[in-house]
Amino acid sequence: MKIVAAKKILKANDQLASENHARFEQAGVFAINILGSPGCGKTTLIESLLASLGTTQRPAVIEGDLAGTVDADRLSARGVPVLQINTEGACHLDANMVAAAIRELPLDEASLLLIENVGNLVCTAGFYLGEHLRLVLLSVPEGDDKLVKYPTIFQSADALVVTKHDLAPHFDFRLERVREDFRKLGNEGPVLALSARTGEGMDALFDWLNGRLPVGHGAGKSHSPSE
Amino acid sequence: MKIVAAKKILKANDQLASENHARFEQAGVFAINILGSPGCGKTTLIESLLASLGTTQRPAVIEGDLAGTVDADRLSARGVPVLQINTEGACHLDANMVAAAIRELPLDEASLLLIENVGNLVCTAGFYLGEHLRLVLLSVPEGDDKLVKYPTIFQSADALVVTKHDLAPHFDFRLERVREDFRKLGNEGPVLALSARTGEGMDALFDWLNGRLPVGHGAGKSHSPSE
Repeated sequence: MKIVAAKKILKANDQLASENHARFEQAGVFAINILGSPGCGKTTLIESLLASLGTTQRPAVIEGDLAGTVDADRLSARGVPVLQINTEGACHLDANMVAAAIRELPLDEASLLLIENVGNLVCTAGFYLGEHLRLVLLSVPEGDDKLVKYPTIFQSADALVVTKHDLAPHFDFRLERVREDFRKLGNEGPVLALSARTGEGMDALFDWLNGRLPVGHGAGKSHSPSE
Repeated sequence: MKIVAAKKILKANDQLASENHARFEQAGVFAINILGSPGCGKTTLIESLLASLGTTQRPAVIEGDLAGTVDADRLSARGVPVLQINTEGACHLDANMVAAAIRELPLDEASLLLIENVGNLVCTAGFYLGEHLRLVLLSVPEGDDKLVKYPTIFQSADALVVTKHDLAPHFDFRLERVREDFRKLGNEGPVLALSARTGEGMDALFDWLNGRLPVGHGAGKSHSPSE
């Protein structure tokens, strides 16, 4: 009974997510869903992406949190359209929440939508929001054993971003183990280790992302996207 | 419909949790539910508790993970009875899982049960397992803004344990902010900052825990507990 209900919810979510995706395509917006544990560095990574891609992209941001506007306040200060979703206890964003959010954002004026999901290495995995790309973050302080313990979310990633890599000397963290476990889960995507604080590895992420963004999503973006 | 189902599940959970609690009382076991994000240091704290309390208590451990036996293997090496629960995708332990686990553990020979929940700062909050005490962990690398973002779990804590405090110099982490936010949530419990690696602050936790353990739970524990 519990399982049937969950399946129904996921099916309804997938339908709404497909509608979100169609809306992104219509608006010429490339959407990235950013997932990871609480405090893994999602907001900091978004700040770096805004600083790096802000000149060639017109970004907008959706912030997902149970409560509060900490991250939205932090990003609004950068002059980027930000919409905060308060899930009021829910442990993940769903497609319905995102559908409501994009009605409030100036989507037709944007080229890139960064969606920061609720900090959660479990529940966020199962809910497609209509995104083009899914980045899953793992921070060095969390430890190198997390892929074994939380396989589903890592299987679902288009890329695994290992954050706070400048702190590796302070932890017993083996990047090679993470790479191996990622392959064992059947994921052939890149594993990108970086530090937003020192800048180490950021270029590799930007290069990879730029290779994924559709042609025509640059600064002179037309409103008839090529994808 | 979704909400009604959730309420029914929680009600059934509470009933089972009360039965677990009665079973703990009957066996003379004090049960601690340990919660926090992935990688916040739950297993490491359990290792410290086993090392410190192992001489005066007869401990047993339940390990909750989506998959794998990483933590159970780590703790089994210490010669303590450990039972691994694999939730197979579920984002938290529930009372039914714990009921099944304690049927497999030598509960009548134990005086202390340490339950490591799934790494999750959201879903674990709502599910009472029958425990006497709930410790919620927040690691320094996660950041000092988590109480605002994930209030429910911090409201539910008997004590807030700030882990990896030796790393504070590497992060912009204000312990005072955490203390203030904890009070703002209406929680009058202690905020205990510590580092299992350096030993800083561990004694304060052990002292506080020893003050909570019922009389008669020492090394010479009788099988007619006084609580």
